[in-house]
Amino acid sequence: MSTSHSVNEKHRISAGQLDMPPRLLLGPGPSNAHPRVLQAIGMRQVGHLDPTFVGLMNEVQELLRYAWQTDNQLTIPVSGTGSAAMEASLANTVEPGDTVLVGVNGYFGLRLVDMAGRYGANVRQIEKPWGQVFSLDDLKAGLEAHRPAILALVHAETSTGACQPLEGVADLCRQYDCLLLIDTVTSLGGVPLFLDEWGVDVAYSGTQKCLSCPPGLSPLTLGPRAVEKLQNRKSQVANWYLDMSLVSKYWGSARTYHHTAPINMNYALREALRLVAEEGLEARWARHQANAELFWNGLAEMGMSCHVDAAYRLPSLTTVRVPEGVDAKAVAQRLLSEYNIEIAGGLGQLAGQVWRVGLMGFNSRPENVLLLLSALKKILGR
Amino acid sequence: MSTSHSVNEKHRISAGQLDMPPRLLLGPGPSNAHPRVLQAIGMRQVGHLDPTFVGLMNEVQELLRYAWQTDNQLTIPVSGTGSAAMEASLANTVEPGDTVLVGVNGYFGLRLVDMAGRYGANVRQIEKPWGQVFSLDDLKAGLEAHRPAILALVHAETSTGACQPLEGVADLCRQYDCLLLIDTVTSLGGVPLFLDEWGVDVAYSGTQKCLSCPPGLSPLTLGPRAVEKLQNRKSQVANWYLDMSLVSKYWGSARTYHHTAPINMNYALREALRLVAEEGLEARWARHQANAELFWNGLAEMGMSCHVDAAYRLPSLTTVRVPEGVDAKAVAQRLLSEYNIEIAGGLGQLAGQVWRVGLMGFNSRPENVLLLLSALKKILGR
Repeated sequence: MSTSHSVNEKHRISAGQLDMPPRLLLGPGPSNAHPRVLQAIGMRQVGHLDPTFVGLMNEVQELLRYAWQTDNQLTIPVSGTGSAAMEASLANTVEPGDTVLVGVNGYFGLRLVDMAGRYGANVRQIEKPWGQVFSLDDLKAGLEAHRPAILALVHAETSTGACQPLEGVADLCRQYDCLLLIDTVTSLGGVPLFLDEWGVDVAYSGTQKCLSCPPGLSPLTLGPRAVEKLQNRKSQVANWYLDMSLVSKYWGSARTYHHTAPINMNYALREALRLVAEEGLEARWARHQANAELFWNGLAEMGMSCHVDAAYRLPSLTTVRVPEGVDAKAVAQRLLSEYNIEIAGGLGQLAGQVWRVGLMGFNSRPENVLLLLSALKKILGR
Repeated sequence: MSTSHSVNEKHRISAGQLDMPPRLLLGPGPSNAHPRVLQAIGMRQVGHLDPTFVGLMNEVQELLRYAWQTDNQLTIPVSGTGSAAMEASLANTVEPGDTVLVGVNGYFGLRLVDMAGRYGANVRQIEKPWGQVFSLDDLKAGLEAHRPAILALVHAETSTGACQPLEGVADLCRQYDCLLLIDTVTSLGGVPLFLDEWGVDVAYSGTQKCLSCPPGLSPLTLGPRAVEKLQNRKSQVANWYLDMSLVSKYWGSARTYHHTAPINMNYALREALRLVAEEGLEARWARHQANAELFWNGLAEMGMSCHVDAAYRLPSLTTVRVPEGVDAKAVAQRLLSEYNIEIAGGLGQLAGQVWRVGLMGFNSRPENVLLLLSALKKILGR
């Protein structure tokens, strides 16, 4: 071993004991992890090919199928945050030259456009103002005009708070022979999702929203038609880390080494999904809806309004219109500094116009709604 | 919200309270996290753009610079396990058509070949038997023959236990005007590394080896020449999640939103790096070397031998020759089932011929060496 050089001490900083403030995370995510999840994440480690870890992988996969309401064999947590699974959904299903039609009605639609382009897709867009959703007629017209191989839609737009209805969309996709790919980052575990009933071919999500798990993994599921497309690719997947033809063997019965799964993050996700199964999906969806309505009613009493029409409003993420003359950023900063509450401002088209308030997973509780309304009243003087 | 379907209970399994066996992880990784790291990972969360988290990001970056002995501004933990940073190192520096010369003397060299090809590189290889290393003459001949834009070498080959000397390699690379890219997955925090003194342009690592942190993040650093190549790219980086022209703005002074960093994993990495700074690199390297020698001497006393020549043997990962007539897999299984000790078998060319024993980070302690030697004696009857 060479030790001919002397060690440079310049970057050897003295960092104090870790201590973070007790934030209540009511922004677009991450939401606070459930206390049981934060206990599970510190569990002693086993190897990633240990029989006990393989058993845990099976449980995580099965519980993800429950949360998504799918039988898809290829249902796994990708070893990266939400955007990694978003990219995996495209990297594996898009072949260079494929036409991909993206419904853009918010920031994450634009991200899908960017990513699809990097995999050589011929990307087309249909657009709606941010906060609105696509009708079946809109989608049919888009499919007719562009004849895509894949239609990509955002089920729960974290940038706008709109929920895209999906009933009937798959029938259109079958008619035009294209795959249906959806973003469920802000809906999984908080908003009704019936992947198989709806005929969704590809979906992805994050752990740090309605699942109340820290960020670091991103669920991905591919249905039979998507798997068939993957198996019949003419070109190699242009991304090694996210290549599901390799990753699926690691998460499949062979457990062939690919990368090293984030062990402790998988402990955390298992606990988060176990909490979903204990509560039951119907009760969990109803809880998210009830607490969101409590918040919306409180806003109305303060004379404030929501950006999204009630018919398409997400219970997990609300965009609140910033009242005339109010400095949106200053209010968010006061919430954080005076009350340890995090909410976020608008992104892109909605910057300065809305606040984004998340009531997700463990954080979707009446006491959090009351506290936030009360703090907003104080700061806004209403 | 549509709830017209009824929830399918098929996948709603009843999973018990999380409880994993107390394994001693002496394989090629993950190693056991330090107890302080497992405490830190469960710390309450803040938002990923919270001022307190931004402060933590700065500390992580600075402590990574210390561990790697580099001043590189672009020094960050990629939000995925080791292979993600490996892929990032190539995705950002390779443009389609670039010649990339890979030194292949083990499994991870082959992985570099696979990945580089996916980014359109004209990949060339120089080879050595697994367990051997390249001399400066070997490298000079390779550079002369192939005139690559990038030379990629594995500093610490986890599949073989060999440590590639790097003194003088950068001078050759400058002479042939190519970047030097190295894999330090199994050396960072355990084996002497002087990135700047050695003139390394790109390096990556993992958290789950000598840093004693769970898997889930992967350090990456790009020096000035690599950053210049990135900034002058003709083509977009063909990978959104790992595009350092975007990620570097998230980890740079602007803190522009890209993806959501794994908050709790960063808590863990900060604590792991804090432990490195507390111990000091010289002491840490000496500890790894001393415990490895204790193990090697114990093996010799049992009449067993190491696969790699002592001059190039990694202290963090030892490949032990399986004695004639011994079933390697059965021994590893008995170590796990009877003593809760994980070691691994050989990969690829070395399958069945060696065991791989890691003495990394927190696990590099004399008591672990004694225990493993003693358990091996029992099982092998020596």
